[in-house]
Amino acid sequence: MLSVEEIKKYDKNYNLHSWSAQGALNPLVITKAEGIYFWDSDGKRYMDMSSQLVNLNIGHGNKKVIEAIKNQAEKLPFMGPGYAVDVRSELAKKVIEKAPENMGKVFFTLGGAESNENAIKIAKLVTGRHKIFSRYRSYHGASFGAANLSGEPRRYTCEPGIPGFVKFFDPYIYREDIDFKSEEEAAKFYVNKLNEQILYEGPESIAAIFMETITGSNGIIIPPKGYLQGVRTLCDKYGIVMVCDEVMAGWGRTGEWFACNNWNVEPDIITFAKGITCGYVPLGGVIVSKPIAEYFDENTLMCGLTYNAHPLACAAGCATLEVYEEQNLIENAKNMGKILGFELEKIKEKHPSVGDVRYIGLFSAIELVKDKTTREALVPYGKDPDKIMGKMIGMLKQEGFSTYSHENCIMIAPPLIIKEEEINEAMIILDRVLNFVDEYIK
Amino acid sequence: MLSVEEIKKYDKNYNLHSWSAQGALNPLVITKAEGIYFWDSDGKRYMDMSSQLVNLNIGHGNKKVIEAIKNQAEKLPFMGPGYAVDVRSELAKKVIEKAPENMGKVFFTLGGAESNENAIKIAKLVTGRHKIFSRYRSYHGASFGAANLSGEPRRYTCEPGIPGFVKFFDPYIYREDIDFKSEEEAAKFYVNKLNEQILYEGPESIAAIFMETITGSNGIIIPPKGYLQGVRTLCDKYGIVMVCDEVMAGWGRTGEWFACNNWNVEPDIITFAKGITCGYVPLGGVIVSKPIAEYFDENTLMCGLTYNAHPLACAAGCATLEVYEEQNLIENAKNMGKILGFELEKIKEKHPSVGDVRYIGLFSAIELVKDKTTREALVPYGKDPDKIMGKMIGMLKQEGFSTYSHENCIMIAPPLIIKEEEINEAMIILDRVLNFVDEYIK
Repeated sequence: MLSVEEIKKYDKNYNLHSWSAQGALNPLVITKAEGIYFWDSDGKRYMDMSSQLVNLNIGHGNKKVIEAIKNQAEKLPFMGPGYAVDVRSELAKKVIEKAPENMGKVFFTLGGAESNENAIKIAKLVTGRHKIFSRYRSYHGASFGAANLSGEPRRYTCEPGIPGFVKFFDPYIYREDIDFKSEEEAAKFYVNKLNEQILYEGPESIAAIFMETITGSNGIIIPPKGYLQGVRTLCDKYGIVMVCDEVMAGWGRTGEWFACNNWNVEPDIITFAKGITCGYVPLGGVIVSKPIAEYFDENTLMCGLTYNAHPLACAAGCATLEVYEEQNLIENAKNMGKILGFELEKIKEKHPSVGDVRYIGLFSAIELVKDKTTREALVPYGKDPDKIMGKMIGMLKQEGFSTYSHENCIMIAPPLIIKEEEINEAMIILDRVLNFVDEYIK
Repeated sequence: MLSVEEIKKYDKNYNLHSWSAQGALNPLVITKAEGIYFWDSDGKRYMDMSSQLVNLNIGHGNKKVIEAIKNQAEKLPFMGPGYAVDVRSELAKKVIEKAPENMGKVFFTLGGAESNENAIKIAKLVTGRHKIFSRYRSYHGASFGAANLSGEPRRYTCEPGIPGFVKFFDPYIYREDIDFKSEEEAAKFYVNKLNEQILYEGPESIAAIFMETITGSNGIIIPPKGYLQGVRTLCDKYGIVMVCDEVMAGWGRTGEWFACNNWNVEPDIITFAKGITCGYVPLGGVIVSKPIAEYFDENTLMCGLTYNAHPLACAAGCATLEVYEEQNLIENAKNMGKILGFELEKIKEKHPSVGDVRYIGLFSAIELVKDKTTREALVPYGKDPDKIMGKMIGMLKQEGFSTYSHENCIMIAPPLIIKEEEINEAMIILDRVLNFVDEYIK
């Protein structure tokens, strides 16, 4: 058993942490986690208001999933991708049962980036085309293919980029200098712009359009009514594969099994990860429509990885999906989401520094501004000169409210097991810390 | 509990299997695995002579690793990358202790492809250069970055390729039409050719040279004495990051902790996966030298993934490394490798269809030919018109010898726990099946 000092020292000396310069890091040592809470080595408790990286939908320490992992570890933790294994079959069936009706089969991967990597390849294979459309203000992962899909600075390290990857703009209505009369009007505008761009890129060369169904890390940007259906229509018209990245938004996060269910849209491919096992064991996957699945009856699926459909992960996945059902978590996400949304609207009303709040189910963000009228962001894009965002996240953490920020947005996405009184408790802390931000912009 | 029929049916209906057209697949249902063996649903036993995908170095069902997984599942299966966790610190320390002396820190990923993806980014970040050298006849993974490193057909789906990825030829002496007097002479030839190519590509634009220390899937191609040291010297001369991909060859496979130890060469980066947990829980990583680690004290490491340094995987990794030590598996790989090598030489001597055998530790391949003198491959590149390779693998399996083939090579890479009598038993089967191949080429 390592002492806390040793844990810190070895971490400092031997570990590289993601998205950071390592010198100034001083990570908390975490020793315990249960439900919506986790504890550091000083015994301090934190509410996990971001579900870690929006993946712990069922919360920490779920007994059913832990038992499933233990049983599968005893039985058969690993078999290569070429074999059939009970949990592999069972999870595939469960996933397709939860997916939109048009879906046929699933290819299991290890996480979101890899799911998107494989979706790109599948779309290219089935269409014989090479161009890939995706959106600015999106994040699809950090490996080369996924990073080239991404429409924000985390892709820069993967440039010069892959030829044929084209970006278009997403419907970020809050920051658009257009006064749309309705969601439908906005949807029409954005779909028409996309159509225009498709025409200028050449529809017959476009394999796929990738979208986060709801933009996640880059600020919970929710599509206006009619938008996804409009993209679906364009994809049908031009024979383009419609890919919804539901790595964050899928598996109950929005109060539906998949975010696309909110608008009754059936994409051709759904990529997922996170919520399928809630991170207890790494797992991701690509769900493909029946026609795409059939294409690969005769044509080689040029995709593969050693840990494809990993049995330990599949066992965790089966148990996780049962937890969603047994605990009515999809419904709870919807109901608690309404309460959270109500609270967030009050916060927006009250605080001069809150420009916008966006929420659907338990997937929400607060967008901070210097001025509500001009909508000037609290921090310039890609910068935080006064370290105000960092300070605020630190103050929240100090008060036992754990989450993270991205640019000028704070992520609020607690485990789907959260209760009303816990939301209220969290909102009191948030309200207090936002007073500090209000002072800062005065 | 699913019946065998249900397992087969759901697998067929809902699962996509890697690198295959799905229509004709009829995968075995696996129900049990222990040591070097696994069993199908008919109770038939197979010797795992490829350690699944050359990852199960410690064999199936290892009690110590299973216990570690169970304990960690109870305690803390997951925490986000931003925190310090005991097993995360412990495994990082253990990895660096086993790695060559120049190594400083480790960034944990989920598998080999992702390790290579991150190594590309790290090399670009530290050098500020964009070109990436890698070799034909290599396999580094199937995601875009890793596939663009790869020098064989599995990369085609990831084309048009990433600008700046350049291929050079590896030292495949068996198929070279040059009569080298010694390994050293061959090494000199290949290093000089590489130097020439570096000069024509512009050394100041080259970030990294990627090599599988020993080429794995593409036929266990072992570098001649002096080759790796020669590449090391070129990298030093031009300020290029030397990356050894040890996803297959690392963690004891060759009778050393890392394959580069066989020639006492210290790369700047080692990528790994497979043997670190033997696949019990998915894990991979990037080991970087002390100077590279220091670079990221002040500069942002633009790498990240949700499941970075996954605690369940780290716990499995700690236990796995202890198993290697407690059971002297590195030494056993070396000793059993000598016995295997001796047997393979006898097989080469005896069978007209065996052109070459290559082996180091328990990492070996048999290269099949139509004619020993002309060295004409048993099957044309990328094809198997008579399905002879498939038939042979099927015959081996029928006799309880499980492995896989790639082009005209058969992989022989059993778990490092294998005993002499088990090798002998396997070689009797192999010998018998090769008689069939001898008949085929007559």
